[in-house]
Amino acid sequence: MGIKITGIGSYIPSAVEKNEDFNNHLFLNSDGSSIKHENTIIIEKFKAITGIEERRYAKDHLTSSDLGFFAAEKAISDADIDPETIDYIIVAHNFGDVQKGREQSDLVPSLASRIKHSLRIKNPRCVAYDILFGCPGWIEGVIQAQAFIKAGMAKRCLVIGTETLSRVVDPHDRDSMIYSDGAGATIIEEDQNNDTGILSFESATYTYDEAYFLFFGKSNNQEEPEDTRYIKMHGRKIYNFALTNVPKAMKSCLDKSGEKIENVKKIFIHQANEKMDEAICERFFKLYEYPMPENVMPMSIHKLGNSSVATVPTVFDLVINGKIKDQEIAKGDLILFASVGAGMNINAIAYRY
Amino acid sequence: MGIKITGIGSYIPSAVEKNEDFNNHLFLNSDGSSIKHENTIIIEKFKAITGIEERRYAKDHLTSSDLGFFAAEKAISDADIDPETIDYIIVAHNFGDVQKGREQSDLVPSLASRIKHSLRIKNPRCVAYDILFGCPGWIEGVIQAQAFIKAGMAKRCLVIGTETLSRVVDPHDRDSMIYSDGAGATIIEEDQNNDTGILSFESATYTYDEAYFLFFGKSNNQEEPEDTRYIKMHGRKIYNFALTNVPKAMKSCLDKSGEKIENVKKIFIHQANEKMDEAICERFFKLYEYPMPENVMPMSIHKLGNSSVATVPTVFDLVINGKIKDQEIAKGDLILFASVGAGMNINAIAYRY
Repeated sequence: MGIKITGIGSYIPSAVEKNEDFNNHLFLNSDGSSIKHENTIIIEKFKAITGIEERRYAKDHLTSSDLGFFAAEKAISDADIDPETIDYIIVAHNFGDVQKGREQSDLVPSLASRIKHSLRIKNPRCVAYDILFGCPGWIEGVIQAQAFIKAGMAKRCLVIGTETLSRVVDPHDRDSMIYSDGAGATIIEEDQNNDTGILSFESATYTYDEAYFLFFGKSNNQEEPEDTRYIKMHGRKIYNFALTNVPKAMKSCLDKSGEKIENVKKIFIHQANEKMDEAICERFFKLYEYPMPENVMPMSIHKLGNSSVATVPTVFDLVINGKIKDQEIAKGDLILFASVGAGMNINAIAYRY
Repeated sequence: MGIKITGIGSYIPSAVEKNEDFNNHLFLNSDGSSIKHENTIIIEKFKAITGIEERRYAKDHLTSSDLGFFAAEKAISDADIDPETIDYIIVAHNFGDVQKGREQSDLVPSLASRIKHSLRIKNPRCVAYDILFGCPGWIEGVIQAQAFIKAGMAKRCLVIGTETLSRVVDPHDRDSMIYSDGAGATIIEEDQNNDTGILSFESATYTYDEAYFLFFGKSNNQEEPEDTRYIKMHGRKIYNFALTNVPKAMKSCLDKSGEKIENVKKIFIHQANEKMDEAICERFFKLYEYPMPENVMPMSIHKLGNSSVATVPTVFDLVINGKIKDQEIAKGDLILFASVGAGMNINAIAYRY
């Protein structure tokens, strides 16, 4: 029995926020002190490291569950299935539905329930729940879906990653330029043909020293209300952590699959930061003492930023549909999915397309 | 192979909020209009329906993840295991960590990551994630744990339900008196002895008409800020929904186990509302045309209120440890767990103790 992705869809918000849109921000250091560079220099440096030129923000009237619903509709249509036959709807996010201009996360009902409601699915045996697992939430949702299929509890699951990070960014923090909005969705099914699909996976949670590398913290502007919190990160610590641990997790995953490094055709990695992603990938191939192939890591970060749980299914969708230049995959290709994020969580899946 | 609960712990906050502590509340109808009865009458009626005399609130400096950590420590100690051998930490909640006096939910990192951090577990292969599934979240976490065990992905899981509903209640809503704080935790393990443990389960999500029966809404006091939201429910709709669907789900679960109704010794049901719980139980037995035994449904709601995901493991813990009068279970007893809540979600587990 193979377990595979039989449908995919993503929702990329139409509103483009360009780097120059941050020109008039008052950026401050985390201690509230001013930054000695002009904004144009700050933004230039930001772009050089992250690769991000622009990002997408959801329209004001939409929330994360709306974005997830749009992506889900496309995935269901792509798989060409009757939505009433879905056994699980698993929705990964990290901040719930945050309406534009509000601070509170709305988590009741779960986003999965909202999306199921919007999809007009009647079948009560389609169980809908949310998972919180940082940016690796979508990959973890796929791992959970395959667990339910292996355990005989499901045949067909809808796994969604959706996030509106634009609603939780501190405008006084340079890191706010990283974050973006978006959603990706996939149908995961069992299939009698076991030549393709999930070959192996790896999941890990590092909390001993790392739990609060990404956190919900105060504005860099000490004049902002003390009680309002935003997404915050210790970037340097995350960079070092990711470089040490993500390549190892990817290697462990690939080794479990029994496949050879020379057969890896593409790596769909969480679009966190271009320089970090490249460094992770280079170190992964170095662990095998094998040269990193050109174009092995398709990137969407330049135009789409970091939309957390949405990046991996979105970049995969874009490549499948020939929307990233010089990037394509063919049936039978060995690919890897990998992610790292808040928790700190890391995961990877080896997959035969 | 049996899958069973090998350790249990609960955390009951020490601060007691009595019904009379609500005497000076300005209770209003959901449209903002005043209620024609005195508060003493409102509270008397409330108690007659829900059974609640008092409830527990977490100390001001504690959050939901703290409560979950306290319960987890007890469950680990009860199971007498090395915490480094835990494969999954699954934490069910619905509002994240909400600090006293604040409105925002803090969800990053996940509560599971926070609890793992507090437990000082180093093993990165202990995967920690949160699930949002309404009040049935703890039971659903147990169902997911058994899926991972069945799929060969885990041998030992820590499943926690924790909630601080006192942080999200509207003081102008009579329903605020229902809600309470607490946490329950269990160790779920595979065991070579398959005479005891989980026999069957049932899960369902109703969203077509029901998704917003429980929701995050405005204060009944229209002078409160428009943007601040609280836990809200359409009580009558929930009552009718639960009475129609929960007994059916419990029957479906019991029938799957192959066990007979006359062997059911105890039903550990979500402590939502005493009258509703009794009506559900009565209807369940009626589906079999079998008389409902006395004392079949242990209740903790009178003194502990409704602490959402925490009620089922807490009442189970209390009975195991002989802390509810005239309630006990013996090795080999057939028991049912059942819950209903936001989503709307329903689930049940048939279990041989």
